[in-house]
Amino acid sequence: MISSPDFDSRLAALRARHEALLAQRNAPAFDEGGAFVRYEHPVLTADHVPLDWRYDFDRAANPRLLERLGVEAAFNAGAIKFGGKYCVVARVEGADRKSFFAVAESENGVDGFRFRPEPITMPELDDPAVNVYDMRLTAHEDGWIYGVFCVERHDPDRPGDPTAAVAAAGIARTKDLDRWERLPDLESPGQQRNVVLHPEFVNGQYALYTRPQDGFIDAGSGGGIGWALLPDMSHARVGAQKIIDARAYHTVKEAKNGEGPAPIRSSRGWIHLAHGVRGTAAGLRYVLYMYVTALDDPSRVIAAPGGGVLVPRGSERVGDTSNVLFANGWIADPDGRVLLYYASSDTRLHVAESSVDRLLDWCFNTPPDRGRTAFSVEDRLALIRKNRAL
Amino acid sequence: MISSPDFDSRLAALRARHEALLAQRNAPAFDEGGAFVRYEHPVLTADHVPLDWRYDFDRAANPRLLERLGVEAAFNAGAIKFGGKYCVVARVEGADRKSFFAVAESENGVDGFRFRPEPITMPELDDPAVNVYDMRLTAHEDGWIYGVFCVERHDPDRPGDPTAAVAAAGIARTKDLDRWERLPDLESPGQQRNVVLHPEFVNGQYALYTRPQDGFIDAGSGGGIGWALLPDMSHARVGAQKIIDARAYHTVKEAKNGEGPAPIRSSRGWIHLAHGVRGTAAGLRYVLYMYVTALDDPSRVIAAPGGGVLVPRGSERVGDTSNVLFANGWIADPDGRVLLYYASSDTRLHVAESSVDRLLDWCFNTPPDRGRTAFSVEDRLALIRKNRAL
Repeated sequence: MISSPDFDSRLAALRARHEALLAQRNAPAFDEGGAFVRYEHPVLTADHVPLDWRYDFDRAANPRLLERLGVEAAFNAGAIKFGGKYCVVARVEGADRKSFFAVAESENGVDGFRFRPEPITMPELDDPAVNVYDMRLTAHEDGWIYGVFCVERHDPDRPGDPTAAVAAAGIARTKDLDRWERLPDLESPGQQRNVVLHPEFVNGQYALYTRPQDGFIDAGSGGGIGWALLPDMSHARVGAQKIIDARAYHTVKEAKNGEGPAPIRSSRGWIHLAHGVRGTAAGLRYVLYMYVTALDDPSRVIAAPGGGVLVPRGSERVGDTSNVLFANGWIADPDGRVLLYYASSDTRLHVAESSVDRLLDWCFNTPPDRGRTAFSVEDRLALIRKNRAL
Repeated sequence: MISSPDFDSRLAALRARHEALLAQRNAPAFDEGGAFVRYEHPVLTADHVPLDWRYDFDRAANPRLLERLGVEAAFNAGAIKFGGKYCVVARVEGADRKSFFAVAESENGVDGFRFRPEPITMPELDDPAVNVYDMRLTAHEDGWIYGVFCVERHDPDRPGDPTAAVAAAGIARTKDLDRWERLPDLESPGQQRNVVLHPEFVNGQYALYTRPQDGFIDAGSGGGIGWALLPDMSHARVGAQKIIDARAYHTVKEAKNGEGPAPIRSSRGWIHLAHGVRGTAAGLRYVLYMYVTALDDPSRVIAAPGGGVLVPRGSERVGDTSNVLFANGWIADPDGRVLLYYASSDTRLHVAESSVDRLLDWCFNTPPDRGRTAFSVEDRLALIRKNRAL
């Protein structure tokens, strides 16, 4: 039989393990010359979630010190610099599959992330959500910090099918990441996920990156990353959306794509990170890719480097939903350093580092996807022969 | 911020890592008594691809020494002994998902594989392919080395669906693996993948192993490994194909199957390697299996050992498309040694060793799949009781 240590020694062991995890330092992995340099360890996992969110420490009620409210994963996080700290608003998923938002903070952005004392209490609407996840944070020039996130409800038209979900974009705003003002969900002609608020007014209006889709999982016919202007976030509504970055056959965004975090302004354009999805014999594969849009029109693509920028590698490949990299948060420091918070396989959150200059270099000098293997060989031969001539 | 080493020290580090990988020696793993003995390390990965195919070494144009043309994977390779060397024609996949062919050579066939200076430039047809992959090499008795490979194009009947692909068999021939004469794609009543040219004339005709299928991913109704004779490879055309190895319920080839490399001639028959596919809750699972056909009629199966011969194990299980073993190349030496080049999870290429005698032993003495659990228990009890009586 497994031994039952007394309450105090068990509590001490749990705390020692937890503190050791939280104290783990992080360092960059070898720089392979991509747009980003990964760090060695995840910055958040389920095990980073505070013990008092999971265990009942009342020795009378819980003499075995069992976990009362398990946590499954901590991943897909929005990110923002706030109060001098690197803050992520993580998707924390309980054992019951319900996810919620919680702020974790770090002094340096690459390790030492600790959750604030309590998760976020997101106000509900009259039609409450069954689940919320994947918040994009935007410090908008109107003075608010907006969180736009996915809201999921059971499909009212298919009450007999427990797997039928409907997705919409939830909207809330805050000044401190703790107290949130919930606004009505985005009104849209169809379902929405991966909606992101652009940080600046465009022609005096708010601007949203959208992902119009026909069904819950299917991106449907056509589609891609959409764009819409709207006068008011308090009653946000979009009609037809302009597709600014379309899905395309035999690319990394063949089956689906969606905007990542809000884009970063640079001297040469808005730098975008997105996820692209393709089908494989083993299910969908999610990778991250980039593009750049014009400063005078954030909906006009001016650079589209071919292929993925970060794809699942090593231990990132496997998790609750394997073969997935996803990112909805990054932070650009005033000195140009960029920290990307990306999640692997719907399970854990990692950090990778770059800079605005490095990202621009990568985006403008990586050849675009020209759509045929023969062109890819042509580009590669040109590179080989140029190198040989040096 | 991450340090930016100068161009020269970074280049030196990249080269040192690359050369260390290429210099890695290989050794057989423990012989578990299967038809093949695996070697410990992959023989090709994305990291084996030459640095000058990926990085721009022009310090003015690329001062950060970033990777300009990423490589995602090196896998599914045809194989042939040529010029005294063990040559594989790998499927190299760029970050843009376009794959192309490239020759890598080794003196001993188990390690030290190095790519030739440039990838293969495969001539295009009037209707160019978007992707090409999985070449089967056949040194035909007509004097040519043929490469038969999969050619993929966007389905012209479904322009609005970026995931709609159409597969056909591409055909090319060479004398040196560098310069290829492209022939018209195989004309067939339906889509084709996994087409393989038999190395000898049969009744004075060329013979193809085929895989007739209804759709791109689905093998569709019926199906299996087909067989067709044709007078001319310059205008290759097949009509109805005879199914020589059918799919079957609750076997390793329930959902799909396809011929691997061209079969090996032996004293007791043609030795075949194939892949079989079944559906699982986590997607498709690809394993390798074998069969033997008659010398006087390569389309007549004379041995069908039950079950898989090599299935995903350990780190082979996970990759860009997990749960896949696939092989389209092997080399039989004059002394009977057989080197199998098999790929795992659409990511990397491995080698396993056997001999013609060992393969025949395995194929003729492994009981066939009798189709019911009760028979399987019966076979196992017979084995147990025979052993007990010894």
